[in-house]
Amino acid sequence: MNVLIVHAHPEPQSFCTAMMARMKARFEAQGHSVEVSDLYAEQFDPVAKAADFAERQNPDYLVYALEQRHASKTGTLPADIAREVERLKCADLLVLNFPLFWFSVPAMLKGWIDRVFLSGLVYGGRNFYDRGLMKGKQAWVTFTLGGREHMFGPGSVHGDLEGLLSPVLRGSLGYAGFEVLKPFAAYHVPYIAEEARHAILEDLDLAVDTLHNRGALPMPSLDHFDAQMNPLANGSVR
Amino acid sequence: MNVLIVHAHPEPQSFCTAMMARMKARFEAQGHSVEVSDLYAEQFDPVAKAADFAERQNPDYLVYALEQRHASKTGTLPADIAREVERLKCADLLVLNFPLFWFSVPAMLKGWIDRVFLSGLVYGGRNFYDRGLMKGKQAWVTFTLGGREHMFGPGSVHGDLEGLLSPVLRGSLGYAGFEVLKPFAAYHVPYIAEEARHAILEDLDLAVDTLHNRGALPMPSLDHFDAQMNPLANGSVR
Repeated sequence: MNVLIVHAHPEPQSFCTAMMARMKARFEAQGHSVEVSDLYAEQFDPVAKAADFAERQNPDYLVYALEQRHASKTGTLPADIAREVERLKCADLLVLNFPLFWFSVPAMLKGWIDRVFLSGLVYGGRNFYDRGLMKGKQAWVTFTLGGREHMFGPGSVHGDLEGLLSPVLRGSLGYAGFEVLKPFAAYHVPYIAEEARHAILEDLDLAVDTLHNRGALPMPSLDHFDAQMNPLANGSVR
Repeated sequence: MNVLIVHAHPEPQSFCTAMMARMKARFEAQGHSVEVSDLYAEQFDPVAKAADFAERQNPDYLVYALEQRHASKTGTLPADIAREVERLKCADLLVLNFPLFWFSVPAMLKGWIDRVFLSGLVYGGRNFYDRGLMKGKQAWVTFTLGGREHMFGPGSVHGDLEGLLSPVLRGSLGYAGFEVLKPFAAYHVPYIAEEARHAILEDLDLAVDTLHNRGALPMPSLDHFDAQMNPLANGSVR
């Protein structure tokens, strides 16, 4: 299996970075091939912008998704996007590893999605959710946060964590067609002792070893909707 | 009233940019003072990183929130963050205006939140939600998207739109203490005719004129939780 870990933490000595290194080693020990996109180390540019396209289909008005399609067809994607796209194409499993910033991914990682999830390659037209063009690949979200486990879930102060992550889990990975495995959360990281951190890394080893049994999040099926995305009468939608 | 519109669209001729200009004019016609942070025009840097802090409290290990506090206290914030912080301090109403990218804000705008919502100034310790340091200010999210209204809500293909936006509405603005007004969504924008676009701008005028009646989203109250954020027995939490 080819694994792509996309990692975005501004501190190379962070626990989040240790999680990335630990996963890489564990996947490799299992015989998998692992590529890492270390976005901070590579000084990735997260801004989707006109300058991404050297040869514009429409130089007068930027529609980002249309220029993505055009640049992808004509082989004029900028080098950094082209490299990430190749990594993504090769991957059987995409891992997004990050610290939770404002109940979401850091801008650095959001920009990786904005720029690399190309229209025409990852999704497009009615190719989304179970018809998304990443179908057949798996995705896994692993992250650190300051909050504790009891602060999330029904009746908790912050509400449902998977709900807060739904723009990534469902709106990006699920939409693109990935089978989205249940996320791995490392709680309360800035406040815990060395021993508790070791325990999390051991949990992460176990999670990697048992990934085939981890289970996936439910996603919509376009079988339950008509061409205008109205629900079909007999559909069992969420 | 002082209004700060934070706007993030890569195409200056976009309908989203027209929404920003229209709101600015309408607020000014009402006698309000309007400042615009046009993040693409200002080439705002959305990456939260070590280089944001010229004088580190801890040069050996970056904890972004702690360095934010330190730089804020010592007056060593970088010029771009310091400028945005001043704009934010002056604002009675913060408007975030953007195109929906992957069911979320563009990386450019996420980075504005990551870098400008300073620990110690916007939130910190147990100062969040109804004790957030932005208490007394209002926030309003206005955005364009490709999807149609029937694609969102119970039983729809994409699910609840306010739920998808919860990392921004609740996890960022609500967390910071803002009263979060009901969002304004401009649906199906890339596919609609000029006339329909004019109708949306007229709806937006009306929304600006009636903002005092718009209503706010429910947010958690820390009154319903103990110091460890466990729900109190008599609390009515969501």
